[in-house]
Amino acid sequence: MTATATANSPTSAPRADISALRDLVASDIVRVNQVILEHGHSDISLINDLASHIIAAGGKRLRPSLTVAAAKLCGYDQGDRHVRLAACVEFIHTATLLHDDVVDESHLRRGAATANALWGNKSSVLVGDFLFSRAFQLMVKDGSLDVLKILSDASAIIASGEVHQLMVSHDLSIGQEVYEQVISAKTAALFAAACEIGAVVSNQLQWREPLRQYGQALGMAFQLVDDALDYQSSEADLGKAIGDDFRDGKVTLPVLLAYQQGSAEERAFWESAIEESETISNDDLLHAQTLLAKHHAFEQTIRVAEKFTQSARDALAVFPASKAKDALLEAADFAVARSY
Amino acid sequence: MTATATANSPTSAPRADISALRDLVASDIVRVNQVILEHGHSDISLINDLASHIIAAGGKRLRPSLTVAAAKLCGYDQGDRHVRLAACVEFIHTATLLHDDVVDESHLRRGAATANALWGNKSSVLVGDFLFSRAFQLMVKDGSLDVLKILSDASAIIASGEVHQLMVSHDLSIGQEVYEQVISAKTAALFAAACEIGAVVSNQLQWREPLRQYGQALGMAFQLVDDALDYQSSEADLGKAIGDDFRDGKVTLPVLLAYQQGSAEERAFWESAIEESETISNDDLLHAQTLLAKHHAFEQTIRVAEKFTQSARDALAVFPASKAKDALLEAADFAVARSY
Repeated sequence: MTATATANSPTSAPRADISALRDLVASDIVRVNQVILEHGHSDISLINDLASHIIAAGGKRLRPSLTVAAAKLCGYDQGDRHVRLAACVEFIHTATLLHDDVVDESHLRRGAATANALWGNKSSVLVGDFLFSRAFQLMVKDGSLDVLKILSDASAIIASGEVHQLMVSHDLSIGQEVYEQVISAKTAALFAAACEIGAVVSNQLQWREPLRQYGQALGMAFQLVDDALDYQSSEADLGKAIGDDFRDGKVTLPVLLAYQQGSAEERAFWESAIEESETISNDDLLHAQTLLAKHHAFEQTIRVAEKFTQSARDALAVFPASKAKDALLEAADFAVARSY
Repeated sequence: MTATATANSPTSAPRADISALRDLVASDIVRVNQVILEHGHSDISLINDLASHIIAAGGKRLRPSLTVAAAKLCGYDQGDRHVRLAACVEFIHTATLLHDDVVDESHLRRGAATANALWGNKSSVLVGDFLFSRAFQLMVKDGSLDVLKILSDASAIIASGEVHQLMVSHDLSIGQEVYEQVISAKTAALFAAACEIGAVVSNQLQWREPLRQYGQALGMAFQLVDDALDYQSSEADLGKAIGDDFRDGKVTLPVLLAYQQGSAEERAFWESAIEESETISNDDLLHAQTLLAKHHAFEQTIRVAEKFTQSARDALAVFPASKAKDALLEAADFAVARSY
């Protein structure tokens, strides 16, 4: 798989790195992690066990990093509202991961056994609810109705998107437009919210919209690349099992493109695998990868992601030059660069 | 079972009726239902299907009725904030029911097939998340940080309580105190919140605490009676399958009392049934009922519920006489009276 991915790389690949973003937010993310530990705590030991597990599993803290960086971009330099609200964003993200585990029956996330596999459906649902509620408690303490609106709206959109995805899974008749609606809701909405909050805490309301647009486009690019990598990267790279989406019958853009551009025989394969099959063999997965390669579905998907990356960059044009702006531009490049 | 229940009745049973509460809130509950229908709507048809199902299944609208009645008790008589916030309370309740269905694998709720049985775990989790988010969107629109605090606190407590219940299910070594902690969190917290909101919308802040205490005690009484009825009433009366708690290995007060007061042989039966057994036969259930009857566990549980009913009544002592007060006193009586 790694060989294939390398073969797809252009000669001058952008750096696959977000060190500028990491450096920019490093000290604040330490504080975000403290808030997460403190407020993820409960008198109920099972909540602590599960919350610690998922917090220890780490994750990239990408969304809270965006909140912190967006706040810095808007000149926020006193107080720790951005830190506490970044923790809210991560709590909501974690809750959706926990609930998504119930949904997808995925066995590997972030390279570790999922909470669901270890503690079961019940715990995942309820601890997710707890973290979600904690996020709203923290927001109430912060006291901004604007932030509460941003994240309650995002939460409703995420849940709609997850249900929408459930409805259209196994359905190859959807077009790229429906696919984009789904990932816009289930992924990009939280990226957009995470960024917009940076403008709100800084009281730079004129920058809410460009930051929202940046986050929205960035989220689209990330999800598109994730969906491409599900068929491409090795398990170690992606931190989750390769072919998970295929096994779940999830209709992602690479599959849609290979299906739409395939021969009658190929379409029959996809229909059988995605729409009907209960169990997917490794041979099925290999054949799917062959067909994706034949139609350059990986590259086509990355081209779509690149368009969103460009939109993300464009949204930042209104901001004067700064370290924070450079870091966010780098994050936009990284969304796609990590696919090479 | 009905015969047993009748045999347990005292000669002068309180009326098992909440017609005064129903009459008091009837026209407002029509508007609550409109808000629920309107805001439960989504572009995603699966959300509508499932939300309509659970809304059509009806439920007693007890919690939103409490919000409306509490607002009236505090003299609220203009605007419809109480109506919209009562809908929020019902959305949160519905979300917890949906998530509880995933958890309990219960097959019958409110006399109808559960959403989970019809649509599966995935849909129940995600549509629950959607309704929960909708509740917060509506609260944000209302604009009261006090209300947002009350309901985000309640939501966190409910989730903790559900996780706590999960931890101690199958565990007969817990005492009555832990049992009461669980039901206080998973049930009474939302009753308390529903009532307290009535004081907030009326801007009668001095009445927040007594209304909270009333709701808390009322919720305890309702859950205690529910837990007693699970072994007593016929399926038609309770609207859910009799013995569900027993089959789930749920340690409720009637069981705790019969276990603690039982002979060595009886304790061995309970341990086998609650702590170890994967499958419960009808004979097991019949034997459990026999033991509960032998130790008057039903009556003992009802006595505990009556204490909470009295606390609920006491909490209303600070309010001047009114129709609303009568209706809420009646609701307190009803909590226990429905057991006869």
